[in-house]
Formats: sequence, structure tokens, C-alpha cells
Amino acid sequence: MTLKHSAEKGIITQSMRDAAAYEHLPVETLCAAVAAGTVVIPKNPLRPNTFARAIGEGMSTKVNVNLGASAYHTNLQEEIDKLDLSIKLNVDAVMDLSLGPRINEIRKEILARSPMMVGTVPLYQMGYELSSAKRHFKTMTIDDFLSVIERQAQEGVDFMTIHSGITRFSLNQMQSQGRLLDVVSRGGALLVSWLRNNPTQESPLYEHFDKILDVLAAYDVTLSLGDGMRPGATADATDRAQISELLILGELTQRAWKKGVQVMIEGPGHVPLNQVAENMKLEKKLCHGAPFYVLGPLVTDVAAGHDHIAAAIGGTLAAINGADFLCYVTPAEHLRLPTPADVREGIIASKIAAHAADVAKGMPQALERERKMAIARKKLDWEAQFALAIDSEKARASRASSEIGLDRECTMCGEFCAIRQCNDSE
Amino acid sequence: MTLKHSAEKGIITQSMRDAAAYEHLPVETLCAAVAAGTVVIPKNPLRPNTFARAIGEGMSTKVNVNLGASAYHTNLQEEIDKLDLSIKLNVDAVMDLSLGPRINEIRKEILARSPMMVGTVPLYQMGYELSSAKRHFKTMTIDDFLSVIERQAQEGVDFMTIHSGITRFSLNQMQSQGRLLDVVSRGGALLVSWLRNNPTQESPLYEHFDKILDVLAAYDVTLSLGDGMRPGATADATDRAQISELLILGELTQRAWKKGVQVMIEGPGHVPLNQVAENMKLEKKLCHGAPFYVLGPLVTDVAAGHDHIAAAIGGTLAAINGADFLCYVTPAEHLRLPTPADVREGIIASKIAAHAADVAKGMPQALERERKMAIARKKLDWEAQFALAIDSEKARASRASSEIGLDRECTMCGEFCAIRQCNDSE
Repeated sequence: MTLKHSAEKGIITQSMRDAAAYEHLPVETLCAAVAAGTVVIPKNPLRPNTFARAIGEGMSTKVNVNLGASAYHTNLQEEIDKLDLSIKLNVDAVMDLSLGPRINEIRKEILARSPMMVGTVPLYQMGYELSSAKRHFKTMTIDDFLSVIERQAQEGVDFMTIHSGITRFSLNQMQSQGRLLDVVSRGGALLVSWLRNNPTQESPLYEHFDKILDVLAAYDVTLSLGDGMRPGATADATDRAQISELLILGELTQRAWKKGVQVMIEGPGHVPLNQVAENMKLEKKLCHGAPFYVLGPLVTDVAAGHDHIAAAIGGTLAAINGADFLCYVTPAEHLRLPTPADVREGIIASKIAAHAADVAKGMPQALERERKMAIARKKLDWEAQFALAIDSEKARASRASSEIGLDRECTMCGEFCAIRQCNDSE
Repeated sequence: MTLKHSAEKGIITQSMRDAAAYEHLPVETLCAAVAAGTVVIPKNPLRPNTFARAIGEGMSTKVNVNLGASAYHTNLQEEIDKLDLSIKLNVDAVMDLSLGPRINEIRKEILARSPMMVGTVPLYQMGYELSSAKRHFKTMTIDDFLSVIERQAQEGVDFMTIHSGITRFSLNQMQSQGRLLDVVSRGGALLVSWLRNNPTQESPLYEHFDKILDVLAAYDVTLSLGDGMRPGATADATDRAQISELLILGELTQRAWKKGVQVMIEGPGHVPLNQVAENMKLEKKLCHGAPFYVLGPLVTDVAAGHDHIAAAIGGTLAAINGADFLCYVTPAEHLRLPTPADVREGIIASKIAAHAADVAKGMPQALERERKMAIARKKLDWEAQFALAIDSEKARASRASSEIGLDRECTMCGEFCAIRQCNDSE
């Protein structure tokens, strides 16, 4: 029985207990939310020694880190270093988005080492396998695809991104409307290429969606419905291509739930900040409250080198308005495969966004951390400030570099420290 | 005649022409906005060789950089380096917030070198002068203060932060309510200390506000009404202390306008993101549409080491909802006086926030830049992407470090580049 079916029957599982404890919520509340589909707990039973995290409405905002090599840059040790950073900085999930020759080796290494949930995009392995077999991607059949997802499910993957919303309908909407940047999702682009090369056929990932669900249900893998039509430019945001795919994702959500498969929805992308809240609310409405997993949103196209900041801006407002799961973005976005240092910057920015959203939503644990920091500042208690900071290591190092001891005010204001003046004149 | 009085009479000045050209707006529109007080052009006639920038409703969002040493860390060359960075990265304004022994020397150097508007907080010099004369700050009189602002006005300072909203009323509101972090404004804390040490008197900066206005009007210096009660913790945001000061700032705005003095209002601070929009709208309402100049807002207290990100998140939403002028925040905030490297990070983050807000507001120049970047990406035109990026230098260096030539896709996706796939299958 899948977790979703258990929840529908009111059967409490260990995963629900663990996830509820982490949220400081009654497990019955969480079980009801999983049953309703508004919360998911992605956890593959074949990889039992991982922790359970709940993603969705009423839960703390979660953060995902993308790992993975590309054909132009493959280095297993770097990917392990990035995973170790993710563990150290306590992120909630990682995805292996590897492409290229060492794809199977890297994924297996990540699955073996990660204590957190692991997601994949099986189309990438599909692309690699077809390419290795010297088959054009247009020859992909549903059986090829089912074989990949079954093997990955057996390896213990917890959630999989599948782009079943890329169909003739959404492609036609994009083409009839015109777009500045077409498709920027790698999986989406593979399917667009398949559709263009098989002009009389529907996408096999849509046409045979029930077969995909049967595999996912058999292994209790959570479905993350990919947003192949996500806008890659602010000018393309909230357009017919994006929304037509979202409509299909709503349909697919209901079909997945009927088969006991947990579902989350992936979302944009590049979105001007004035459209972020509406995008979140539209997803919740059209996809029946399914958790929303967003990449960014990046609120401008021109922040290359600092896209983690553009994403943190959009991600915070998104999470206040319904996004439940933030996929981090690194400073390397649009420029190169991220280095471990880029990954670190990306994680911190995303954690700031997630926490700031939880503060704005009034979540008790987040407010308590803010309150403790304010008190530590009032006391000029530097050690407490470092301990409470999201990036304790950098806060400590930055303060230390000023060469003024922790028994004194910092070098920003020196003896004119406002807090000191107020404390002294009280 | 002050710029405000000229505008009220419909007399177009060169500053209005220059500022209007920069905004791509008819100068008559700008003149009317200056007359109404919804836009300011801070420009001291005694420093004629500086450019004019308009700050306020309908204008592009502007960015300020804080410079200045403290008693614990004074290095003139570092401050010059920070100014040079500000010029190179094309910010709109700098403030010299120096404290400590070299305060006059640093301010004069900045005024001599800066082609952009320069602001100061005269209370800091006041504090330094009294301290040098071995006088307790509580002995400050209005004549002491007028002497400082007149000398700074003669040196060519374009705008001055003056905390006339710290009064018995706002202090009583803070004390009767209780606050986690009291006052975090240095100027605010000086005045709180003055009020506590002179328990029977009202603040001279409020009591003799008309005398202050007379000096500012004589030199046509723009008044930036300081927010001494700005919250320094998210838990203290939008409280009675903050709003009671804002009420007084509204009163002072009308009084300044009557004397022909241009006014902007300074604002928070640490504010949870769900309170940011309301704070902006409240300022516009209570202060009769006067431009709003915000520090942050920082949307969490626990981002030490990365407060430029916390500020960019708050600043973007603030600017969409009425903030006109963003004071940058650096990664060193709460930890140390910023280094030039910190200043660079702070400037870029603030420029991302300002631009993202202008995109969300639909400002034509900002949208056009986004459109050009989308087209450059579609063409895989890397040189055009670097040229359009807010931080061209870092974007170029980051791409170059991957050692893949500009004739190819970047290492993120390699041959699976979504844009390449779409272009090829079209």
C-alpha cells in the first residue's frame, strides 16, 4: 500500500510520525493532509535509512539542492563534495540532474550517501541511454521510459520529475503565441524535440501516463510533475504555454491521486515579482492544492553571476503565497555547472528565502529564532548571534576579520553603537 | 529660490532637465512632481558639477551606498576605494556616515570626488565634536546643531538625514510598549540618550525644526527625515514606536514644504515580508506622498553574513509598493565595517532589487533590458549576455572559468542545452 493510500485509510506510518515531529505538528493533522494531497512525504521504502520530510501547505518551507555533472564537466568527487555541503547545511532534499557518461555511477553514489530524499529526472538518463545506443531521441518509446523509471525506483529514488504536461496542446499554445525564449527546461526541450520529430503522435509520457503511474505506485515513488513550459525569461512568464501545461498538470494530479501516487507540481522559472503571488495561487487552484515546487522564481533576467539573489527575492514571496518547496539557484546559473563554492552560496540564499517566508507566515519555530536573535543582539552576545545565524561559519569569520574582540561592539559603529547607547542610557 | 519653490512656480531648471532626460520623461511631468513633493532632486548648488537624479513616484528606483569609517576602523584609502566602486557600478547616491577622528577629512574627500549626490547624518559630526570638546552629548543645543548643518551645507552636501521625529511622544510610545531591540539607529540612539538625560525638555531637533529648515532652505539642501525608531528586529516591526515617529515625520514634511525644502522620508529596517507592502503604503499616506528611502527592509534577523540578500528580498517588494530609493546593505551588516569587497556585493544586490522592482512596475527601460537579455540567450550570444548583466565582470569571469569557449553551450547542460535543442528542432 502506498503512503497516500495509507493516509486515506487513516493508517499512521513511521514516516508520518517522523515528519510530523519535525514540524511540531500532530501526526493526525499531517496524515489528513497527505490523504488530501496537500502535503507529500517523498520516501522510497527501498531506501529506509533516510529521514522523512513533509512538503506542502502548513509545513515549514523546504529547500532542494540540484547536484549532477554534465557531459562538458564530469567530476564525481565534486558532486560528493556538493552533497556533503548539502548535508552539513541541513537541506531537505537533493536532486541528481547528471547528464553524460558517468550518470549511473554518480546517481548510485548520491543514493548511497544521502540521508535526505533524492529526486531525479529520468528523461536525462533516457537521453543518455538512447544517445549511447546511437538512437535518435525521437525513437524513444514508452517502454524505454518505463524501463528507466523502474530501474531508478529499484535503486531507491524518492521522487521523480516527469514532464507529462508537455503535449501537442501545450506545444501548440507556445508556437501559436510565440515566445522570446521557447523552452528552457532540458526535459521539456527533449519532449518538444520528440513531438516535432513525430508530428502525428502524442507524447508517450502523456498518452501512457497510467503505465507510468503503475510503476510509481508499485515502488511508492512520489511524482513531481515537471514544468517543461516554465518561462525562461520574465517576458515569457504567465503565458499561454505555461498555463496550458499547468492545466494538464491539474488533470494528471487527479489521475495520480486515484492510483495512490503522491504528487507535487513544479513551477517557474523567470517571473516578474508582481506576477509571483498570482502564479502560486493559480497553481493551488488548478492543481487542487497539490504542493508547489518552484525553481526561483527569478525576478529578473539580468542577474547572471548573482542569480541566487534573484531567486531568493522571488522564492520568498512565492513561499508566502503557496510555494512549499524551493529549488535553490546558484550564482553559476546561466553561466556554468556550479562549483562547490557556488552550491554553498545557493544553499544559503535559498535557506534565507525559506526562513524569511516562514517568518512572514508566522510559523512559531521561525518566529522564535528571530526573537532569540533580537535578544542576542540586545545583549551584544556575539556567540549567540553566530549560533542563530543561518550561516554561522561566515558570520563568525566576518566578525573575526575585523580584529575587534567579542567583548566589544563591532567596527560598524564602534563606540557609537546604537544598542550600547540605549543600554547605557536606560 | 529653492528647487521646490521654482517647481511650484513652474520654472524649469537645468537639474530638472537633466533628471528628466535620465528618466526618459517630459520635464514638465518632473517639474509638477517636484512641486507636489512626490519627487525630489537632491542637489546642492554649491557643488555644481554633479549629475541630477530624481527620486520618487514614477521614477526608476534609485540606489544609495553608505560609505564612512568608524572610530574602530579608519582608513581613508578604503573609503576612496568604496567611492570608486560606487562610481564604476553607477549608483545614484552615496552617504558619508563616518564617525571618529578623520570625519571631516573623509567627508571633504568624498564631496570633492563624487559625481553623484552626497548625503550625511550631521548628528554624527555633532557627536564627534562634542566628544572632542569633552562635552557630554546631553549638552547639545540647537545652536551647536545648526552650526554643523550650516558648515556641511557650505561644503556642498546634497541631502542630510535629520532625526526630528524622535520626540518625547515617540520615545514614550516605545517605552510604554516595550521592544526587543529598542533603537538601532545611531542618530536615533543619540537623541534618545539626550532625551533621557534632559528629562524635562523636548528634543531640540523637533522644538527648533523651523530653524533647521531655514538653514536647509538657504542652501537648498534636501531634508531626509531620519527614522530613529526603525525596527532593528522583525519582532519590533510596524509597532507603536515606529508608527508614532512616522506620524511626526508626516507633520514635519508639510512644514518643510511650506519653506520650500525638498523632503524624503527614511524607513525600515527589519520587517517581515508580509508587512512590507503595508509599510510602504502607510508612509505614502501619512507623509503625503513624499519619496520613501528605505534601509532594506531586511526580511529576517538571522541572515548575518548575507544581509545583502535579506535586504534585496525586502527592497524589491518595497520598491514595487512605494519605496523610491534603496539604501544598500552589505554582507558585513551586523558584523563589521564593510570592506570594499563587501561594498561591491551590497551594490550589486541592491541594483538587482531596484531593477527587479522596475521590471515588476513595467517601466519601459527595464523591460527593454529584459527583452534584450532573452534574445541574447536565445541566440547563445554570450558577449551580449555579459554586456546586459548587472554585474558584467562577474558573469564574464564565471563563464570563463569553466574553460568552454563562447562558441559553445555552457557547462551546465552541455550538449543537452534546452535552448540549443529547441533551436535545432524548429
